[in-house]
Amino acid sequence: MNLTQSDRSRELQKKLEAFVSERVVPFEREIQQRIQQGADRWQVPDGMAELKQAAREQGLWNLFLPDAELGAGLTTLEYAPLAEVMGRSLIAPEVFNCNAPDTGNMEVLYHYGSEAHREQWLKPLLEGKIRSAFCMTEPAVASSDATNMQATAAIEGDEVRLNGRKWWSTGLGHPDCKVLIFMGLTDPQAGRHRRHSMVVVPLHAEGVRIERMLHAMGFDDAPYGHGEVTFNDVRLPGSAVIAGPGRGFEIAQGRLGPGRIHHCMRSIGLAETALELACRRSLSRQAFGKPLARLGGNAERIADARIAIEQARLLVLKAAWTLDEKGIDRVMNEVSQIKVAVPRMALEVIDMAMQLHGGAGMCEDFPLAQAWAGMRALRLADGPDEVHKMLVARHELARYRS
Amino acid sequence: MNLTQSDRSRELQKKLEAFVSERVVPFEREIQQRIQQGADRWQVPDGMAELKQAAREQGLWNLFLPDAELGAGLTTLEYAPLAEVMGRSLIAPEVFNCNAPDTGNMEVLYHYGSEAHREQWLKPLLEGKIRSAFCMTEPAVASSDATNMQATAAIEGDEVRLNGRKWWSTGLGHPDCKVLIFMGLTDPQAGRHRRHSMVVVPLHAEGVRIERMLHAMGFDDAPYGHGEVTFNDVRLPGSAVIAGPGRGFEIAQGRLGPGRIHHCMRSIGLAETALELACRRSLSRQAFGKPLARLGGNAERIADARIAIEQARLLVLKAAWTLDEKGIDRVMNEVSQIKVAVPRMALEVIDMAMQLHGGAGMCEDFPLAQAWAGMRALRLADGPDEVHKMLVARHELARYRS
Amino acid sequence: MNLTQSDRSRELQKKLEAFVSERVVPFEREIQQRIQQGADRWQVPDGMAELKQAAREQGLWNLFLPDAELGAGLTTLEYAPLAEVMGRSLIAPEVFNCNAPDTGNMEVLYHYGSEAHREQWLKPLLEGKIRSAFCMTEPAVASSDATNMQATAAIEGDEVRLNGRKWWSTGLGHPDCKVLIFMGLTDPQAGRHRRHSMVVVPLHAEGVRIERMLHAMGFDDAPYGHGEVTFNDVRLPGSAVIAGPGRGFEIAQGRLGPGRIHHCMRSIGLAETALELACRRSLSRQAFGKPLARLGGNAERIADARIAIEQARLLVLKAAWTLDEKGIDRVMNEVSQIKVAVPRMALEVIDMAMQLHGGAGMCEDFPLAQAWAGMRALRLADGPDEVHKMLVARHELARYRS
Amino acid sequence: MNLTQSDRSRELQKKLEAFVSERVVPFEREIQQRIQQGADRWQVPDGMAELKQAAREQGLWNLFLPDAELGAGLTTLEYAPLAEVMGRSLIAPEVFNCNAPDTGNMEVLYHYGSEAHREQWLKPLLEGKIRSAFCMTEPAVASSDATNMQATAAIEGDEVRLNGRKWWSTGLGHPDCKVLIFMGLTDPQAGRHRRHSMVVVPLHAEGVRIERMLHAMGFDDAPYGHGEVTFNDVRLPGSAVIAGPGRGFEIAQGRLGPGRIHHCMRSIGLAETALELACRRSLSRQAFGKPLARLGGNAERIADARIAIEQARLLVLKAAWTLDEKGIDRVMNEVSQIKVAVPRMALEVIDMAMQLHGGAGMCEDFPLAQAWAGMRALRLADGPDEVHKMLVARHELARYRS
Repeated sequence: MNLTQSDRSRELQKKLEAFVSERVVPFEREIQQRIQQGADRWQVPDGMAELKQAAREQGLWNLFLPDAELGAGLTTLEYAPLAEVMGRSLIAPEVFNCNAPDTGNMEVLYHYGSEAHREQWLKPLLEGKIRSAFCMTEPAVASSDATNMQATAAIEGDEVRLNGRKWWSTGLGHPDCKVLIFMGLTDPQAGRHRRHSMVVVPLHAEGVRIERMLHAMGFDDAPYGHGEVTFNDVRLPGSAVIAGPGRGFEIAQGRLGPGRIHHCMRSIGLAETALELACRRSLSRQAFGKPLARLGGNAERIADARIAIEQARLLVLKAAWTLDEKGIDRVMNEVSQIKVAVPRMALEVIDMAMQLHGGAGMCEDFPLAQAWAGMRALRLADGPDEVHKMLVARHELARYRS
Repeated sequence: MNLTQSDRSRELQKKLEAFVSERVVPFEREIQQRIQQGADRWQVPDGMAELKQAAREQGLWNLFLPDAELGAGLTTLEYAPLAEVMGRSLIAPEVFNCNAPDTGNMEVLYHYGSEAHREQWLKPLLEGKIRSAFCMTEPAVASSDATNMQATAAIEGDEVRLNGRKWWSTGLGHPDCKVLIFMGLTDPQAGRHRRHSMVVVPLHAEGVRIERMLHAMGFDDAPYGHGEVTFNDVRLPGSAVIAGPGRGFEIAQGRLGPGRIHHCMRSIGLAETALELACRRSLSRQAFGKPLARLGGNAERIADARIAIEQARLLVLKAAWTLDEKGIDRVMNEVSQIKVAVPRMALEVIDMAMQLHGGAGMCEDFPLAQAWAGMRALRLADGPDEVHKMLVARHELARYRS
Repeated sequence: MNLTQSDRSRELQKKLEAFVSERVVPFEREIQQRIQQGADRWQVPDGMAELKQAAREQGLWNLFLPDAELGAGLTTLEYAPLAEVMGRSLIAPEVFNCNAPDTGNMEVLYHYGSEAHREQWLKPLLEGKIRSAFCMTEPAVASSDATNMQATAAIEGDEVRLNGRKWWSTGLGHPDCKVLIFMGLTDPQAGRHRRHSMVVVPLHAEGVRIERMLHAMGFDDAPYGHGEVTFNDVRLPGSAVIAGPGRGFEIAQGRLGPGRIHHCMRSIGLAETALELACRRSLSRQAFGKPLARLGGNAERIADARIAIEQARLLVLKAAWTLDEKGIDRVMNEVSQIKVAVPRMALEVIDMAMQLHGGAGMCEDFPLAQAWAGMRALRLADGPDEVHKMLVARHELARYRS
Repeated sequence: MNLTQSDRSRELQKKLEAFVSERVVPFEREIQQRIQQGADRWQVPDGMAELKQAAREQGLWNLFLPDAELGAGLTTLEYAPLAEVMGRSLIAPEVFNCNAPDTGNMEVLYHYGSEAHREQWLKPLLEGKIRSAFCMTEPAVASSDATNMQATAAIEGDEVRLNGRKWWSTGLGHPDCKVLIFMGLTDPQAGRHRRHSMVVVPLHAEGVRIERMLHAMGFDDAPYGHGEVTFNDVRLPGSAVIAGPGRGFEIAQGRLGPGRIHHCMRSIGLAETALELACRRSLSRQAFGKPLARLGGNAERIADARIAIEQARLLVLKAAWTLDEKGIDRVMNEVSQIKVAVPRMALEVIDMAMQLHGGAGMCEDFPLAQAWAGMRALRLADGPDEVHKMLVARHELARYRS
């Protein structure tokens, strides 16, 4: 297992780090201030387009996409340290056109979309001109078991008709969100993993209705937001079905694998940010005549955080390497492992950092509370811990079944 | 240690439970709907005054106050199960005039206030006509060490002059908030615990300025809110100093002891609510062909939650009993113990319940996310865990020092 | 719930404490030395009989037995602090004739035994003249599910015939062990909880064979020991069946309830001993220029231990009170709760104390390693944690099932 | 970071695995049986010499030593998977001449010993003809702070005179133990890390006296054992001082670095063994009508174990790689990280496996209890967790100190 970072990856990492610290972080601070002065949080902030353009000009664009022409042509392993850098800022993924769920949606369209899908939706997505959403989870059923899904994508002649209610569709509130990918039941008689279809749906198609925007642990996550959305007899041409009816599970698997790895990479970056904040705070604040770093168990907790981050990062790199070397079908175990390990680790590190910051850690003065909320959501998004553990256990036990 | 609930307490508990389920819970739901329809969250909701009046008429009013005339005359132990019931709803403490920080402030005025303080401020507080705030924590220093405090309450002739910046002043955003209690440094030369004073400050005194309202873990906690507030040469008559200069620490101790116990009692109620929700959800939702209650480690986690709640409640009752029997000076160890144990327990129970609810657990459809945020804040409010542990350890080690 | 200690209990506690510190602890140290000098660990140490006689003369005898004539006539709640004192020494329970499994066996014979059983076995047990063992767990099956039991107690005419293999029969190695209680399958067709019988078996009955003595986490626990024992066509008169055939489960339930509470009480005492040792060590040893108590997270861990012990003790007292007030049938939930909570707590406290002692903590110079081993065994003995959690969860969920 | 296993390492791993399963494991079982039949546990078992010879003939000998002539010439990274295989059996390290503390002692003599030391002691150690011990820890002081050390190695003319008491000298009970390395204070006036010397001491030198053998968590770990040993005016020629006076700390650092990594590698193997046992048991035992693997949280715990082992192994590989690439001085942080992370992980995995085995897991029928004891000791040996965490925290905080 060669985890050596390639020269190209290292070079991009340096450029990214410079760009983030010189351009993204100051811009993020400015946005923060504008919001405190009353700016509309649901609009794309002035200056964002220019920043994205600058990133693109520097070649810091679509780094997630393995395709060398449309994206950067990096392996997953090469992308890992880059995603980690992006993860250290909450707006950086947007700046570099690498934010979820757009990356996953772009991958779906890239791998499974028709020529028309790619022309109409993938192209503007790759250019960062539009945003997208993904509609899988449903409020009425335990969506951890995907076969519970009740929404339908019925094939009727040369049309597909969508009905159902979805929620936690991240990005749905973004002013540039123009398209969503919908997953629904097509053929209840088919085999367990051949029943569902994925459909490309223009956001403004008739019958699509955003019912409300949800808060996640108190945060509305503007300007992306998480939406609850209903589909009432939404009729689309059959060509809207990605790769044909019944391939929903197959596509979901292909989509969620890399997506989960990317999430975990960014989470490592977030944990590093939290640990850095914890160290700086513990050195600069005094109580009982000493810096916090020298009080009680604080230093031990900082050590525990470093040890936890190192282990989690290595596991993510292993998953990335496995995806590159063995393909999506043989990385599911590793993906489930990091999906469990990384958010759990990040939550502990961030929580430790919050505690060291006192009240400041819980409010908007530091990115810690929002980071915690995001990580907490990740213990549920793309499959709850419990489901991933079941998968890991099944792999493990299978080695000993006769 | 006789923890038997008195007949009076049991009777009040029954009345409270009925009132909460028949009046408070439906009203809470209604408020929720109004807010989704755009109601101003920073106003007292229509109907609240009537509900408070009804509670008062039923004798469910000021139950926290041991004084038999002004309050209900209950012991702390008698109050415990009542506070627990109130803790199961987020608005119930307000309805029964038992919400923080007003209860603590009322206790300060009751025990240490002058006749004038009691007439001007305690009376309307006891009647639920006004709300109050408490200003102790400061943004610029580690407030876990109270001697770090930089705000000043300078005695100048027959006046007291206040300067400084405070934050996390809960209740400051409430439209009825009229008064706050400010703690500041009066005499830097005095003994470590004789340097500070507490001062009653009308909210609209000249020089008092609310700088901003803070979010706590994403929540603004309207209509109470948490404020950051500056004091610029606020001049008040010397009579505003509670019990005279230099008694700040003494009063804080007396105020925070019962206050922390009340917080913990309510937190037990919150944890019970979370566990109830977890049970109901795990019985009603199905995945992989079974109710969640029968999947993986879910039932074990429910058992762990019950075991944890039972232990925490008993420790809170012990603290209450000790306060009643031995007084505030001899309950500090017990108070620190529950201050550490209870929020930690509640966070775990609530987090478990959230996980069982999936995405629903994180959003506004259930009170879990807000409950988590409140409990997380409690690991810092009134002294962070680490400081309370130091106090417990000091007690423990003192038994063996020669 | 009145947990007030009665005057009688308090008086006995004082006498016990004095007796333990003046007589038992020095004697324990002496035994330790003799063993290092080569004494036979499987013999009753010289002097033990005299010590037991002295305890008996002081009325510190059979305190566990609620019967006022045969025992001390104490309630479970009254006995709790006494068991806790005994738990602080590894030999104390023997000195006061309150050690497991004899206490449980005496209770079985007291409640369910015939006149003959009581005369022949209960009497010498109560006098501390003989010791006993209990044979329930089997090596070949998961004994956490008692219905897995394969040993048989077949009724044949006026005889009962025993066959099977049992292990973890504590006390089997004691030179005074004369009798054991055996549980086996009598009628596979009967209802699930009516199939098994309990039988009184003289240790030297034909067909009873001790196969080997087991180590528990490295300790042989001499002179009691844990035995593996086979029963090959052991024939006894039908009168050996306690309370008649088919009542095995009923008796086990009645036996194990109080037994588990007693175990937990003693475990609280053990945890207190560990915490005391931890405090003393952390004050007396220096590293990096400071006593250990002031290094890193040590003080926080001491506080956590105190907080954990307090909570666990209160839960044990609640279980004791419930047993006294509501009877064995209505205390099963509480018993399962403490059976999970107390060993877990004690293991953490002891482990913390070991770590503070460095190498000394792991060896025979301190009772910590042996204490840890005993507590680890208790997570399995009388039902593993997982089974008790299932029971607690079932109780909890039953509240919400429609 | 290229963690790819070399062909040579892979080939040796296969040979080792075959040798262990075909020769070592059956031999281990045989020894076990002989012991149950009364064999002297403190003698080298018959057949061991032959097994060692066979291992040597297959080139499975001294694999730990980077020297290509005297050892196998493997990098640390190449050795890692081999040590892991050896760690899966308790006697394998002896069979392949790779057991502690001999490996560390051989490294000391190899790197710092004189020609005479190497001829007299290193040679027979490398041939597996003799065994050795290491004397650093002292009973009278907190040895976690090595500067506390009280034993002396006084230079007197051309002699060195040793005095003091050491304990936890592993291997001291072995019949072939002929030499020990002693660390003592030479010059109290010298710089903090120039005060101590290491001295080669023939076990039978006059004045060396084994006071007693210690149990570690109940185990005597025969035939190696852990000794307490006094040095009373032990006089040796000055040439016995390794590399000259005052270099004790430097040598200790060089010795303990790789030694800790080797310990951690073997611990990964032990954890894998425990997980394998857990899986096999959970598939083969039934309770409540299901295999244990399908009951409650068991499968989740198996998944957690796999996730924890993977992360820990990767961190160990990173430390090995860092040692190879950057040298001993720049791997201290990584070494401390694994020293904390690996035993903690292994203890949890082993404890989980024990619980799944019920009573069988605690006794000699499975290697789990002894494995747990060994891992518990490792949280103290070569520096307790707390000291290693301090070192990790210091590194972390140093990045942010101005």
